[in-house]
Amino acid sequence: MIDSGIDSGIEGRGAALAPGGAIGILGGGQLGRMLSIAAARLGLKTHIYEPGANPPAGDVAAAVTTAAYDDTEALARFAAGVDVVTFEFENVPALAAATLLAHAPVRPPPRALEISQDRVAEKAFIEGLGIAVAPWRAAGDLKDLKAALAEIGAPSILKTRRLGYDGKGQVRIGDACRADAAWDEIAGAPAILEGFVPFQREISVIGARGLSGEVVCYDPGENVHRDGILHTTTVPAKITPAVRMDAVLIAGKILNALDYVGVMGIELFHAPDGTLLVNEIAPRVHNSGHWTIEACLVDQFQQHIRAVAGWPLGDGSRHSDAVMTNLIGAEAEEWHRLAASGAALHLYGKAEARPGRKMGHVTRISPKPA
Amino acid sequence: MIDSGIDSGIEGRGAALAPGGAIGILGGGQLGRMLSIAAARLGLKTHIYEPGANPPAGDVAAAVTTAAYDDTEALARFAAGVDVVTFEFENVPALAAATLLAHAPVRPPPRALEISQDRVAEKAFIEGLGIAVAPWRAAGDLKDLKAALAEIGAPSILKTRRLGYDGKGQVRIGDACRADAAWDEIAGAPAILEGFVPFQREISVIGARGLSGEVVCYDPGENVHRDGILHTTTVPAKITPAVRMDAVLIAGKILNALDYVGVMGIELFHAPDGTLLVNEIAPRVHNSGHWTIEACLVDQFQQHIRAVAGWPLGDGSRHSDAVMTNLIGAEAEEWHRLAASGAALHLYGKAEARPGRKMGHVTRISPKPA
Repeated sequence: MIDSGIDSGIEGRGAALAPGGAIGILGGGQLGRMLSIAAARLGLKTHIYEPGANPPAGDVAAAVTTAAYDDTEALARFAAGVDVVTFEFENVPALAAATLLAHAPVRPPPRALEISQDRVAEKAFIEGLGIAVAPWRAAGDLKDLKAALAEIGAPSILKTRRLGYDGKGQVRIGDACRADAAWDEIAGAPAILEGFVPFQREISVIGARGLSGEVVCYDPGENVHRDGILHTTTVPAKITPAVRMDAVLIAGKILNALDYVGVMGIELFHAPDGTLLVNEIAPRVHNSGHWTIEACLVDQFQQHIRAVAGWPLGDGSRHSDAVMTNLIGAEAEEWHRLAASGAALHLYGKAEARPGRKMGHVTRISPKPA
Repeated sequence: MIDSGIDSGIEGRGAALAPGGAIGILGGGQLGRMLSIAAARLGLKTHIYEPGANPPAGDVAAAVTTAAYDDTEALARFAAGVDVVTFEFENVPALAAATLLAHAPVRPPPRALEISQDRVAEKAFIEGLGIAVAPWRAAGDLKDLKAALAEIGAPSILKTRRLGYDGKGQVRIGDACRADAAWDEIAGAPAILEGFVPFQREISVIGARGLSGEVVCYDPGENVHRDGILHTTTVPAKITPAVRMDAVLIAGKILNALDYVGVMGIELFHAPDGTLLVNEIAPRVHNSGHWTIEACLVDQFQQHIRAVAGWPLGDGSRHSDAVMTNLIGAEAEEWHRLAASGAALHLYGKAEARPGRKMGHVTRISPKPA
């Protein structure tokens, strides 16, 4: 734990939201649900804001507002009724963030939202910190794309600048002469071309930064995707102590540069030459950090709540090794077998198991080798 | 884990409440709050029934009914709207249990309630299983008390048969000639006189029994009380493997004799000669089992939810040593210092910190010695 030494009151307590206080959470999915549980453990209440009916987080929240993200009246009422606002996803409309800010602190800071909402801004920001990323070029039209392909070459990946997640809004270009087809496939939306990095592995660091500037990072996990969706996270990642330290320093640099408050997920490629390249950042709790619930004293959800409430961060050290496996779509129908399997089972309370939908996860822990 | 081999459906699944199902919980205090959280983790909803306004469990429940325990209409409506009913305390009125049973399964079984509500019935039941208890005599009036004192001697403890908890309804008799004063102090309620056991330590076993008869017990913890209220639980207890096995076998015998479903807390005295005597049983999750949240993969709350929902019990083995300390009354005002102390902090969301009131707890974990 790196403590900045900044003290914002008696023992830092002046800036902290007292027990009984209310945290507003934009978004009522599984991340909001697990954040609500973490807040309750600390004696804090949550209020969920979510356009959809019966959000999973609603079952464990003190209050729910059902309204659209462009309903400025509802947003203002919501923010005025809580002590601090946070969110479970990065695609919060800029206008919504501005409306909320007029009534309550918004943590993490809206600048982190803006950057992570736009893949071009994100890449430029990270490069600006002297951190490696995959080669990239913005592609506003087909002509740009062809020029970018000439520079970066194939294989490469064309991604929409905005609103991509879980592999959506992405197309792999195996051959430079497939530019037209790829452009059609993303429907001509403003895009970015990224060079394909033949990485050994993807790892992620879940980092937290407190209101007084202290940073705590969890041990990096190693991620395996399937059909563009996270399948497993294994901790520890198979990396050397030096690479682990590099990963944590990269996370700390990003958190500090944004004057960040809360938890952030940072995905990195570990290249064959040992280099770490940042793939993307998510200004929120992250699927690849779910293992912390069972393997750490203070998990990523409680760490996020502590940060946004202005509390001291907790002990994020890992007491066990862990493997987290997502349950996607119909996989959650195996709940009875999984409950009997010796693993910790989590189900998100979603009624409909659509293909590709995250329905739950399981975590297995094992003793850390001595 | 002792598996009875009973199979109540395809893989036992036929009897299990499917995700999305609703569990009704009588009582909305901190135990109901932690049970609600555990249910949510498994994709189950909870409905809290509580006479008091703004119950702590209400912040994390899908529904709350505010009504008295003798409101049979409200009880019937409540039970008809859930799939199974459980409770967070043992003093559920017999009439309430009967009303609920007409509409939904009640787990643990009401017989466990009846026995634990009456210290005389409890002692007789446990003795009937061949398990040691402190010497005792029922005392219906002052004459009985004097006769009991002549047999058992002093020091001894006079307790009301019903409605005692956290040291309430108890008076220590240091000298046999203080019988009249002691009788006045408990206001002449039907009572029991218990011989004082000069125990080395108090331990407790948190045991769980599933719907198909399997039993899982957590490692015994060692309890220290202060002013009649649990102060700390330390795990492991300082007992030999043989005593630990004895404690677990006693718990299993009690659970099986009651055809029990759910978690039970069993408090035992460890006498200087090594004997274990059962002090009392609580047919619910127990304060001395809160350490399981941080030190076990599946904690006592989730184990209880799994049992009452007819699910397979989970892995209750302990991965870490633990010390749980209750925060009573004003002690919880130290929340900021405790949050920074490296411990896991739990606050129950109670607005008013009355003296003697359980406001939260902290748990410290440390690696198990190899």
